[in-house]
Amino acid sequence: MNTVSAADAVALHQWRYAVKAFDPSKTIPTEQWAALEQTLVLAPSSFGLQPWKFIVVEDAAIREELIGAAWGQRQVVDGSHFVVFAIKSGLNADDVDRHIARACEIQSAPKESLDGLRKMIVGFLGMPGFDVDAWSAKQVYIALGNFMTTAAAMGIDTCPMEGINPPKIDELLGLEGTGYKTVVACGAGYRSADDKYAERPKVRFAAEDVIQRV
Amino acid sequence: MNTVSAADAVALHQWRYAVKAFDPSKTIPTEQWAALEQTLVLAPSSFGLQPWKFIVVEDAAIREELIGAAWGQRQVVDGSHFVVFAIKSGLNADDVDRHIARACEIQSAPKESLDGLRKMIVGFLGMPGFDVDAWSAKQVYIALGNFMTTAAAMGIDTCPMEGINPPKIDELLGLEGTGYKTVVACGAGYRSADDKYAERPKVRFAAEDVIQRV
Repeated sequence: MNTVSAADAVALHQWRYAVKAFDPSKTIPTEQWAALEQTLVLAPSSFGLQPWKFIVVEDAAIREELIGAAWGQRQVVDGSHFVVFAIKSGLNADDVDRHIARACEIQSAPKESLDGLRKMIVGFLGMPGFDVDAWSAKQVYIALGNFMTTAAAMGIDTCPMEGINPPKIDELLGLEGTGYKTVVACGAGYRSADDKYAERPKVRFAAEDVIQRV
Repeated sequence: MNTVSAADAVALHQWRYAVKAFDPSKTIPTEQWAALEQTLVLAPSSFGLQPWKFIVVEDAAIREELIGAAWGQRQVVDGSHFVVFAIKSGLNADDVDRHIARACEIQSAPKESLDGLRKMIVGFLGMPGFDVDAWSAKQVYIALGNFMTTAAAMGIDTCPMEGINPPKIDELLGLEGTGYKTVVACGAGYRSADDKYAERPKVRFAAEDVIQRV
């Protein structure tokens, strides 16, 4: 595997910013977009449960409608691609079974060999007072972090969007009744040459205020 | 900025796995570790609020004690580095003020110019029924995703750990009473040559089961 130098690793995080204005004339090449989708497929999650679905919105009319569900943010349509990150709501034993079945298939393992793992995960999800949707949402944010970082490494800009109306997006995407629920979204593409936010110094606390050594 | 090819972007996610056995004899070089810390400092968060602290545990005795707060996982001590991801609990207007003050300082902006932004963020955090700690935890998972991906890009292995006892870790790290609370942790280093998990095929659902086109 080709690796990235320490300097390049820092540079990609300095280069990345939440794009305010995408250049609507630019499209992410097919091969690079396919790699970003693979990033989503390969994203890690606790127990490998993948409690998610990533909806790539290609329909121009739907994207236009989504602007209204994203407080008017033009990044929804001006970016080359737009992805909605959804969780499987109320993750339960059936979802664990689906994962275990997949594990058996891929690792050619007998189902019984994973009985202990299955039981442990089902027990974890069923803990009294455990907010399973909040847990699934955190997993989705790993995928979001991966997506933004990998895009930046490839020279592709992103704009993560929490300022959205999830129930409205669920409705527009037809997610209602499917068991999946919108959590967050992200546009991807290329910054506009006149996005003044691109060159603004990044506001971060000093390293000594966020990194503590013990 | 040097960019990564689509093939290399996919390769790094294929290469990454949750390390089960680190090689305890290997240490991440200083320059590369400094880059990973920078990744944490530069991680994006909603509104740029950075509701977090990253505790790098260097003290060998404390790391040894942390094994017991991580259900016996040896990765806590066998990895080169170990980071605890904590949130600022009960994020409130004071935290927003701290962020706004930093923004004014870095962007040489008069405080009044950010009054609208301040008011909006304070209103957001104070929404009735809003679970601010759950929200902060999601932000931390962006940093976790970034950290794992950037490490992999540099050829450094990681092991994210949700299977931990956060109150016990808070106690061992002296976080009690500081306003910060452990959420998740991550070891970093190099896989042991005999970690049989390294070569296991990754269990992921088929792309068509997690990526939906609309």
